[in-house]
Amino acid sequence: MADGAPKLEANLVTIVPEAEIAGLMTPQDAYDAVEATFAAMNSGAAYNFPVIREAIGHADALYGFKSGFDKDGLSLGLKSGGYWPGNENRGLTNHQSTVVLFDADTGRVKALVGGNLLTALRTAAASAVSINHLARKDAKVLGMIGAGHQSAFQMRAAATQRDFEKVVGWNFHPEMIGRLEETARDLGLPFEQVSLEELGAQSDVIISITSSHQAGLMADWAKPGTHIACMGTDTKGKQEVDPALLAKATVFTDEIAQSITIGEAQHAIASGLINETDITEIGAVINGAHPGRQNDQEITLFDGTGVGLQDLAVASKVVELALERGVATQVNF
Amino acid sequence: MADGAPKLEANLVTIVPEAEIAGLMTPQDAYDAVEATFAAMNSGAAYNFPVIREAIGHADALYGFKSGFDKDGLSLGLKSGGYWPGNENRGLTNHQSTVVLFDADTGRVKALVGGNLLTALRTAAASAVSINHLARKDAKVLGMIGAGHQSAFQMRAAATQRDFEKVVGWNFHPEMIGRLEETARDLGLPFEQVSLEELGAQSDVIISITSSHQAGLMADWAKPGTHIACMGTDTKGKQEVDPALLAKATVFTDEIAQSITIGEAQHAIASGLINETDITEIGAVINGAHPGRQNDQEITLFDGTGVGLQDLAVASKVVELALERGVATQVNF
Repeated sequence: MADGAPKLEANLVTIVPEAEIAGLMTPQDAYDAVEATFAAMNSGAAYNFPVIREAIGHADALYGFKSGFDKDGLSLGLKSGGYWPGNENRGLTNHQSTVVLFDADTGRVKALVGGNLLTALRTAAASAVSINHLARKDAKVLGMIGAGHQSAFQMRAAATQRDFEKVVGWNFHPEMIGRLEETARDLGLPFEQVSLEELGAQSDVIISITSSHQAGLMADWAKPGTHIACMGTDTKGKQEVDPALLAKATVFTDEIAQSITIGEAQHAIASGLINETDITEIGAVINGAHPGRQNDQEITLFDGTGVGLQDLAVASKVVELALERGVATQVNF
Repeated sequence: MADGAPKLEANLVTIVPEAEIAGLMTPQDAYDAVEATFAAMNSGAAYNFPVIREAIGHADALYGFKSGFDKDGLSLGLKSGGYWPGNENRGLTNHQSTVVLFDADTGRVKALVGGNLLTALRTAAASAVSINHLARKDAKVLGMIGAGHQSAFQMRAAATQRDFEKVVGWNFHPEMIGRLEETARDLGLPFEQVSLEELGAQSDVIISITSSHQAGLMADWAKPGTHIACMGTDTKGKQEVDPALLAKATVFTDEIAQSITIGEAQHAIASGLINETDITEIGAVINGAHPGRQNDQEITLFDGTGVGLQDLAVASKVVELALERGVATQVNF
């Protein structure tokens, strides 16, 4: 316009509250969205912006944003995520996430979406994508390291990818193993609590989902042919497995930049056990540019660091579903 | 909670659409919010997070976030801002901004606020704060460099701070001077279109609000005692005045880190004309830690770079006003 005055054009913003997400989004929807995102990242159509992460000096909170843009899916926006340790005492979830989506054609805000359950679903979908593309087809035993909140989501998503016959599990606090036991029961799978060494000996697929800063699974404990997904909290210092295991394995990740700095690969890289060029984007496998697993004896390892584009992809899908089913709130903005 | 499962606790999110802002927020509210923010930044109670700014490779758009936290005002959140040059042809504003506020005690999303008019108001408030604290009390002539959209906001805010008797103006495209003329008329002030040199000779306060990358106002053109506010688009390469003018003046800014990298001071710093330590935070003047102007002959210069905390402050105020007056939309989230 000639004079540049702000126009007061109406805009509809779609609101999908946290409570609606469970009824809208399936693990399969999350899988599809995340797989497409990893593919777009590898083809160059999608990229993540720098991550903001701040200890704000109030309520012991950690707060920040992950953001990005996917030209293929036209997902643009951010997830605001934070950890408020005092929430538990208020009867609230400590991890709080909200996704804000923008119209890539105009820059106007498009949707506000509860991000707590979506974060769990997109993280689980990432390891499921890695299992689908990297684990042996005949994998029978699933090993779960960690029994926290996210472990149940991981197990459920993994179970959709292979015909597992058994789940073995380990947790730093053995008395907290119950979640794994119950989730396996829900899935109709026998469950056994084992040592980490035994978990390595039995498992064809291992998912590690802990907040550990010290290697749990040692390199010699994983048997040939295993696929391992390291999915725990990414941050400087995070460590779930022996760095020597990364040297032994073929290493894949969602985003190399995060993998080598805040991901599982940071230690193997820092100690020179592997180089950045030894790590392959999982998107390259999805896109057929890398063959993925090349034989039944190869150990494959997926370093799932978690990127903003995954959040945007699942949130975009949930908005689409909410609008289709008429359960979205829309407000003039 | 013990099991870590996400709770579906209801939360009310306040929505203040763009169209409501004009009826809620006054320049004085913006002034108060911005002044308090600059004071909090200087006392260390408030800080801005790193700025995200990306050319997304779609629709020629520039997109990003400014974010921060103010412990005093408990403002936490971000402004997503973008420039979509094709919007004009769709009948939309090219600059699109949205502010998202979070509860600093819990991390839950608190409000979604239209940010277009607020951006104009908070930018104008910044130069007004600088005029109040730095311009001579007897300033009579206001010089305006630039006649774009933001210039009217700047002039109106400036007019509340001193008893100006006249406005002189210059614009790169002389035929576009109309906005300055009309705004001065609305304020009951005579207006004269002048050359830049003449503008310097007449003005006691100068506001430069352009997107220039080349010095307009030369160092010798500003008379002793003038206060100059450089308020144009901050980015690498922006330049509105002669770097030698910064060497001649006492330089103030909202945030030193931005001032020396993307602000008006970048050139004077790069060429060694001034040092970082020559620049004072305007908050130090507000807080009484720096005397500000020290005599009637001193030239003071304010490098207004624009920070996320300003956006959060005005948006928090508008939410408060919308709730007080019952015009806010609240949605369960």
